[in-house]
Amino acid sequence: MTKDVYQTWENYMLSCMGDSAHDKEHVYRVLYSALEIAGEEQDVDYDVLICACLLHDVGRGEQFENPSLCHAQVGAEKAYRFLTERGFNEDFAARVRHCILTHRYRNNNVPESIEAKILFDADKLDATGAIGIARTLFYKGQVSEPLYNVDTQGRIQDGTGDEKPSFLQEYRLKLENIYSYFYTDKGRMMAQARRHAASDYYENLLAEVCPIYEKGRQALEERTGFHV
Amino acid sequence: MTKDVYQTWENYMLSCMGDSAHDKEHVYRVLYSALEIAGEEQDVDYDVLICACLLHDVGRGEQFENPSLCHAQVGAEKAYRFLTERGFNEDFAARVRHCILTHRYRNNNVPESIEAKILFDADKLDATGAIGIARTLFYKGQVSEPLYNVDTQGRIQDGTGDEKPSFLQEYRLKLENIYSYFYTDKGRMMAQARRHAASDYYENLLAEVCPIYEKGRQALEERTGFHV
Repeated sequence: MTKDVYQTWENYMLSCMGDSAHDKEHVYRVLYSALEIAGEEQDVDYDVLICACLLHDVGRGEQFENPSLCHAQVGAEKAYRFLTERGFNEDFAARVRHCILTHRYRNNNVPESIEAKILFDADKLDATGAIGIARTLFYKGQVSEPLYNVDTQGRIQDGTGDEKPSFLQEYRLKLENIYSYFYTDKGRMMAQARRHAASDYYENLLAEVCPIYEKGRQALEERTGFHV
Repeated sequence: MTKDVYQTWENYMLSCMGDSAHDKEHVYRVLYSALEIAGEEQDVDYDVLICACLLHDVGRGEQFENPSLCHAQVGAEKAYRFLTERGFNEDFAARVRHCILTHRYRNNNVPESIEAKILFDADKLDATGAIGIARTLFYKGQVSEPLYNVDTQGRIQDGTGDEKPSFLQEYRLKLENIYSYFYTDKGRMMAQARRHAASDYYENLLAEVCPIYEKGRQALEERTGFHV
């Protein structure tokens, strides 16, 4: 690939980016991590991989506007159309489309090519550790969902089996479990190295907020004589 | 205070709340922490303290709409007016107003009463540790500011002396330094106990993202033969 070709893909990606949680720096982290993972794999087509990494989230805007759409499906088609219209050959465009279609954690399209497996792992890696915590909190802020829910007894719910959306629910539902879903050894190893950063953060957050509610509600009752 | 009076204040607070970073759970955490701090202090007027905690952020909406306004000033006047209109006496309303006016980290109005000092500390406490990290990330998501800035050489800026807004800049400018600004011993002690949670998170985040950019940009150059 030439620098011009790289910049054609990059500029298209930049023109599609919107919200901060999936902003361009997420795309660069995925690209850079993918190259690190690819270094341990055989027979990687770097043109397909680099193009798929740059374009993997070009369908985000559509999903943000209409949550019933899947950004992997929308993005795969957008990328395929963009590439064939710009004169890239159909086989190349189809291999990039496969990577983008199958990169999502929550869907039934499974990555088959080595480039698709690497993109999947590099994207999941950005949901692990401290960076995964940061991106989830960013997103919760954008959609105005709470950090945690409080039950009718005034106790903080730690996210386990929680039915209402919150940061703690997302941590227990997705962030905590993501470490089992890697296709490459290198991706899994990189994720494992970050695991403690996410779990320490979750434990620290709970250890800070839970006692405040317990002691505070008790003190309020003692001072006022009534129960809230 | 009766339960009715408490609920009058609480309902007024709830009617004023908007964005998640300063949502009602922040108000309850401040109230509960304030009661914990107050337990170690003498001659606290609990009616003034509880009312000031509940109403301390009622000016947030105005500041969010118009960032040139100071929510402490707006909130102090709103609370004073609300209380006097509801028949609370002028001295009580003025003491609550003093607490709210002086609770902000970044202004020149200094807390003088013990209730004002406790509110200041309880509010600052919610910017320490893991909860401070969470609230800052929420807020950055809402206003669409990035996690970090990248310099022209493609290196992540760690927030030190950074001129453009980002989460890392806010950490270095405010979150990291907040531990020196407490009025009460109990507040300072509670903050210190959380300090490691915030600094560990910051260090972990940098340790995850910085090497990705370094190694990734180098690998990209090696694979493509050009410099981005």
